[in-house]
Parts: sequence; C-alpha cells; structure tokens
Amino acid sequence: MLKKIGKKLLPIAIVSTLAISTFASDVPTVDAKVSPNQGKVKNVIFMIGDGMGPTYNTAYRSFKDNKSTPYMEKTAFDEYLVGMQETYPWDPDENITDSAAAATSMAAGIKTYNNAIAVDVKKNEVKTVLEEAKEDGKATGLVASSQVNHATPASFGAHDESRHNYNDIADDYIDEKVNGEPKIDVILGGGTSYFDRSDRDLTSEFQEEGFSYVTTKKELMKDDNEQVLGLFAPVGLDKAIDRQEHQPSLADMTDAALDRLNQDKDGFFLMVEGSQIDWAGHDNDIVSALSEMEDFEQAFESAINFAKEDGQTLVITTADHSTGGFAMGIDGVYKWDPAPLKAAKRTPDFMASEITNGADVEDVLEQYIDLNLTDDEVKSVQNAAKSNDVTTIDNAIEQIFDLRSGTGWTTGGHDGVDVNVYAYGPQADKFVGLHDNHEVGQMVIDVLSNKRNKK
Amino acid sequence: MLKKIGKKLLPIAIVSTLAISTFASDVPTVDAKVSPNQGKVKNVIFMIGDGMGPTYNTAYRSFKDNKSTPYMEKTAFDEYLVGMQETYPWDPDENITDSAAAATSMAAGIKTYNNAIAVDVKKNEVKTVLEEAKEDGKATGLVASSQVNHATPASFGAHDESRHNYNDIADDYIDEKVNGEPKIDVILGGGTSYFDRSDRDLTSEFQEEGFSYVTTKKELMKDDNEQVLGLFAPVGLDKAIDRQEHQPSLADMTDAALDRLNQDKDGFFLMVEGSQIDWAGHDNDIVSALSEMEDFEQAFESAINFAKEDGQTLVITTADHSTGGFAMGIDGVYKWDPAPLKAAKRTPDFMASEITNGADVEDVLEQYIDLNLTDDEVKSVQNAAKSNDVTTIDNAIEQIFDLRSGTGWTTGGHDGVDVNVYAYGPQADKFVGLHDNHEVGQMVIDVLSNKRNKK
Repeated sequence: MLKKIGKKLLPIAIVSTLAISTFASDVPTVDAKVSPNQGKVKNVIFMIGDGMGPTYNTAYRSFKDNKSTPYMEKTAFDEYLVGMQETYPWDPDENITDSAAAATSMAAGIKTYNNAIAVDVKKNEVKTVLEEAKEDGKATGLVASSQVNHATPASFGAHDESRHNYNDIADDYIDEKVNGEPKIDVILGGGTSYFDRSDRDLTSEFQEEGFSYVTTKKELMKDDNEQVLGLFAPVGLDKAIDRQEHQPSLADMTDAALDRLNQDKDGFFLMVEGSQIDWAGHDNDIVSALSEMEDFEQAFESAINFAKEDGQTLVITTADHSTGGFAMGIDGVYKWDPAPLKAAKRTPDFMASEITNGADVEDVLEQYIDLNLTDDEVKSVQNAAKSNDVTTIDNAIEQIFDLRSGTGWTTGGHDGVDVNVYAYGPQADKFVGLHDNHEVGQMVIDVLSNKRNKK
Repeated sequence: MLKKIGKKLLPIAIVSTLAISTFASDVPTVDAKVSPNQGKVKNVIFMIGDGMGPTYNTAYRSFKDNKSTPYMEKTAFDEYLVGMQETYPWDPDENITDSAAAATSMAAGIKTYNNAIAVDVKKNEVKTVLEEAKEDGKATGLVASSQVNHATPASFGAHDESRHNYNDIADDYIDEKVNGEPKIDVILGGGTSYFDRSDRDLTSEFQEEGFSYVTTKKELMKDDNEQVLGLFAPVGLDKAIDRQEHQPSLADMTDAALDRLNQDKDGFFLMVEGSQIDWAGHDNDIVSALSEMEDFEQAFESAINFAKEDGQTLVITTADHSTGGFAMGIDGVYKWDPAPLKAAKRTPDFMASEITNGADVEDVLEQYIDLNLTDDEVKSVQNAAKSNDVTTIDNAIEQIFDLRSGTGWTTGGHDGVDVNVYAYGPQADKFVGLHDNHEVGQMVIDVLSNKRNKK
C-alpha cells in the first residue's frame, strides 16, 4: 500500500486506472505481424522510401493523426515494424551512404562505394536479386517516382561504376538480357529524356521487344500487356501534392505492376521506390516530404493488401538512408505542429516557380497556403522575390513552414542514422532486429531464390 | 545469364562474391535474441538511456567501431534491438515529451502530461511497476547518474504533480511505504543536496530504517547491506569522461544494485538510467553524449550478463525520448567522423570551467584535446574566453568538435522521433515491433506482476 494513498487516491482507483488503460477499446494496440512463418516466398515486393529516416516515419504519423482521439493513430507502416538497418557504405572518402551504394547493398547483398550501381568496390558487376529472380523464371518490375534509371532502381536493374551515367543505365535495362530475354518486365516512373534520346530511342526498342510504351496514367490504365515501359515525366514525376491528372501516383504504378507481374506462375520480384522523400529532404522541404510519405504509404497499402490476399508474398519496406538531418523540434520548444503543414496546397517549389514566373507574392501565398500569414512572413517572401531566384524564394517559403511546425534540418545531404525496417508475409520474422543493409539484401535473395532454397 | 557478363566478369566470380559475403567468418552477423520465450519473469531490469534517440545509437556504434575491420562492429545494444516506441505525451501545450511524462508512461502504463511524476492527467497518483513489484514482495532499486530524485527515477519511485518538487520527491522515497516498509531497497546516484537538507535529513532517516548510507565508490564497494542509499554528488554525477575515482560508474552502481537485489528470493525490479546522455544532448555536446553512451553501455552489459546467468530476468532497454535533434551530417557533407571526438580527454564543460577559473586557453585545449587545432579554432575559443562566460566558452569548444565530426543539432530541447527498444530474456518477444511508451510500461507490469500472472 502507498502511504499517501488516503490523501490523494483510493487504491481501487489506481487499479481501475491501470485496468482501463490496458483494456479500453479506444486504445489502438499494435503487435508486429512477425509470428514465425516459414512458408515459401513466391513473390517479393521490396519497397524503399528513399531518405526515409526514422523521424520521417514519426512525423508522418503525427501529420496523419486524428486529433479528436486520445491516442495517436498508427500509420500503415507501423504495425509491420520489425527492426532497423545500418546504412554506411564502403567508401574511401565518405561514411554516410548515397542511394546507389545503399541500394546496391539491398539489391545484391554486398557493401560498396558511393555512386556504385550494382558493382562492388573493385567495380566488378554483382548479380542482383532482380536478376536472380529472372533467372529463376520469375517476372520482375521496377517502379519509382524519380526517373526509373535513378540510383535506387538502377541498382536492381543495371550495372555501372557511376550512378551519373544515366544513359548507360537506361541502356542496361534493355541490353542486359537474362536467358536472351529482357530482364525487367515492368518499368514505371519518370525519365523520357533518358529513354527517348537523339542517339538512341529505347522506347522504340522496348516496343520491338513486345513491351507496351505508355506516357500517361490513362494509357497505363487502358493497357493490359504483361510487359510495359511507362515513363510519365522527362525526369522525376511531380511531387504528389503538385501532381496533375496525367501522372499516376506511386500506388497507381504499384497496382499496375502487380496486376501484370502476378500473371507469372513462377512468381515475381518487384522493387517500388518512394524516390522523392529524399529529394524533399535534400531541399529541407517538410511539406513535400510529407506529401511524398503519403504517396509512399498508399503504395505500401497496395502492396500489403496484395500480399495479404496472396499469402506467398513477402513485403520488405525500408529506407536506403535518412536525408537532411530532419528533426521534430527546434529552439528548445517541445512542440512539433503538423497543422500548418496541412495548410499547404502545393509545394514551396511550385509556389516559388509561380512567383519567378511573374505571379504576385501575396496572391500565390494566399492561393496555396490556407493560413493567415503574418506581415513578416509575407514580407520575408517578398524580400526573397526581389532576387528573382527560385531557390531563394523557395527557401523563404520553406522557412515559414519550418518555423510554424518546429521542423529542423542539419544538412542538405544525407545523415547517418539507422533506418526502420518493416516486413510482412512468409519469412518476415527473419528481418526482426538490427541488420546491416547488405544482410537485408542477402536475406531477400536467400528467401526468394530457387537455387538457394534448394541448398 | 547477364548479357554483359563475358565483358566484365565471369559468372563464377559473381557467385563467389555472393558466397563470400554470406559466409565469410569476418562478417559479424546479428540475429535478435527474441525467439519466443514464454518463461516466467522473476526479475526485470528496466534500463533507460535518457535522451537516447536513434542517432545516438548509430553514432555510438561508429564511435566504437574498429576501423581495421571491413564491417562495423555492433555495440552491446545492437543484437537485442526488437523495435521502437512512440514517446508523445498527453499535454495541453506540448506534444514532444519531457522525461517525466515519458517515464511515467513506462513506469505506470498510462499517458500523462509533461512534468508529471507518476500521476495521470487529472493529477491522480498511479501505481508504478516498482510499487507493484514491492507489493509482490520483490526487492526494488533505482540507479541513475543524475540526482536519484530526477524525473526518470522519480516516476518509478514517487508521485508528484511536478518534477520540479525535488525535495517532495526525495521525501516520497522514504515516506511512501508499501506494507509498512520502504518501497525502494537500493537507491544509487547523485543528490545529497536534496537528501541532506536543513529542514530534513533523509540520509539519517534511511539509516534509521536499516539502510546503509554511502557517498563514495569505495564505501559502496565495502558495504554489504541489502538496503543502501548511495549519493555520490550534490546533484548529478560528473560526466563519465570527467569522473574522478570517488564516483562510481553506472556499471559499478548497477552491479552493486544487482548484488543486493538478487538476494531476494521473490525477485526484483531495478530501474537503471543513463541520465546524462540527455544532459549532453541539451548542451549539444557530442563529446559528453558519447561518453555517457559508453557509461550506459557498460551498465547494459552488466545487466545482460546478469540476465544470461540468471535465466529469469527480463532486460528492457530504451530511451524516454531523443534530445537535441542530433544528426550525423552537416552542410551537405557525407561524412560523420568520430576520430576528433576520441581526441577529447574531458568534456567541453570541464575545459570551459578551467578557462573561466583562469587557466590559459591554449594550455587547456592542448592538455585536453589530442588534436592539432588550427589557429582559427584556438582563436575562436580565445575570443569566447573574453566573455568570461562559461557557456560561451563551452559553446566555442563544442563547435570545434561539431564541425570536425560533422555533428548537427536542431534544438536545445527534446525532439519527437521514436526511440529504439531492446529486449533480452523471458517474454522479450512481446516487445517486438512498434509500441507506444505506455504499452511498453503495461507489458513490463504484465509480465512481472504476480497478480496479473494469476489472471
């Protein structure tokens, strides 16, 4: 018994407080779905939130929270958290990874240097899980909201000593055959400028190989060919919050990929990247980051729903690294407020671009930010607009959101923190705990590969 | 087969690269030790790294890494990672937690407001896991490197509407009895100024109850009484890197607590806090943060070793929140370098204090930092020293370490990111996944309590 109980509280009340907390039906309880499941893995969906460090996952939960309930609602990701992974590269000069080294680790189960696209530290090509799946007769796909030949998808579908060789990487997608056939059946994302070039028109070459080629969401939806190249922008897609009707969402592309890949009786490997979480992080743009998180979450839900119905699909979801040194909390204030971020109807980049193109600052801010901005806030953008420099204006608008929400950043590059790992489906329990990113890659190869499974 | 294979690499080489990566003996592989273990929990050791957000764990691994091996060595924590926990409070004004609200959630399984010491949002006292353990006849202990009546330990062993009522909290430790007996058997940390007061001398009162009272490491080691109050500093202990012989380490105190608590045939509950990771984070002092991480890791190793030998002890290790918006990476550089941090022989606080007390800037820097500082670096501290303000000087020294290592911070307060959860022992698998901090508290109570186990 507590000596002070009589003074402040009856024992029965203490007990009932505990009981209510434990059993009340309004308490969202989450148990990771990682009960040992040694079932066969027919399909793998490998989802990568580029730049999605732990704070992005926490902040997105707060952003999506229904404030009218006492406990914070979980995101679609949350109930599948099984652990974390290390991301450092093997690089002579840098020990914070880039997307290429990290994706190569996840795609091929090895460590390598920054910039490496599925080559090891000696620049030797290494076989990727996508290639191994194709050798096993499975269907394969790459989906990204960046150009499809950007570092992350490239590390699954190409080989190059440098991520910057965009054209060579695009060439690899069609030149590198497995058993004489194209190794990637579904390629969806941005990147027409790398595929439809003056020196070589890969879009025609893919069509000669029997692929459909689509460039709008409508065309993608109408198409029913099992092999498809879909390129919906010259480089990356628009950010989700800025996206127009003709561009598919990441979930649209994921669904389209799954519809096709699932036709293969031997199973499939699909990589889906929420590419621009990272780009938002580089820009230190919290509005865009959350918009891209939402796009990625919706694709994740598509993947999980497919896997739940299918029963033989492993969904692995993680990040390649964290970007921006993003933190919830600045200046000693114990508050991170998502409300002002929900008031943005477009990215700061979009608004800055409108202003650079001659639109009035006040009009743009009023049209695209559903907040009563202070005079000082408006003036800060007006002052920036005098530069007529889109980056300066963009930064001024971003600062409004940072200060109002309590968002901090330490870098325009990547940061080194371990990243979250989520898993669902057969063999998901293998991913519980902390692993290095190359170990995650090895495990995915191990559970999917026919050869390995026969050992 | 890859089409380009003949050109760059033989297939056999690809296979052997993968094989070597998978099976080479120099690859440290880690599997979380969370195989379902439904064994009885006799003892719980609840370890809290105050302020230990995910980046602290990643950075500490890099700090301890043996650079002569290809893969990064794991820390003592790493192999026990099982998930993460949410930390947000139920507070009318703030949504980033303080230590009091978070510790109350972990101690009592409820959500509450910032500043609350084991009281709910209506300021009603809530029973803590320590109190429930004592009701069950178990031995109990609180160990901290802060004053023992600081927010985290207080939330396990006292009740107060405000963490700032330090004297009342200290009073609770002896006034709040369970079954007529003191509810905490082992109390080790700092805090003489709150226990030996002009209005009341709790150190005498504890001795009258049969406790030993010790104030140095030597006295603690010599003592063999099962009940002990050990206070080794007026407020908090010195940071580990500054600590003198007379102060025990967190591991020393943990060992001393375990020796005593383990005498109780009914089992025990022990809370151990690495308190000053947080204080270092508030100060944006990476040198101190890593020093305190090391102190905490050594205590963790003591706890794990005990639990491995005992077999009936659950060790739960986590943080109450993250502090400082600490990130590895600044200014777009892809490098976080621990080398300059290893060159510090004392905390910047200690050095600043020496300078404020009249020591020459160059002498102090040369004596306590094993680096060839640039003229600009020395001048930056000399300029700061003109203020004769210890904080200004401290900040100048910290900046040298931040810039050399690539360490960024966004706040002098806490940040909102989810924190890591580590578990070992019976029922450890319950903690796999993402949980709210009050759910972690509930689970600890559930697995330890006799009453609950009988249900």
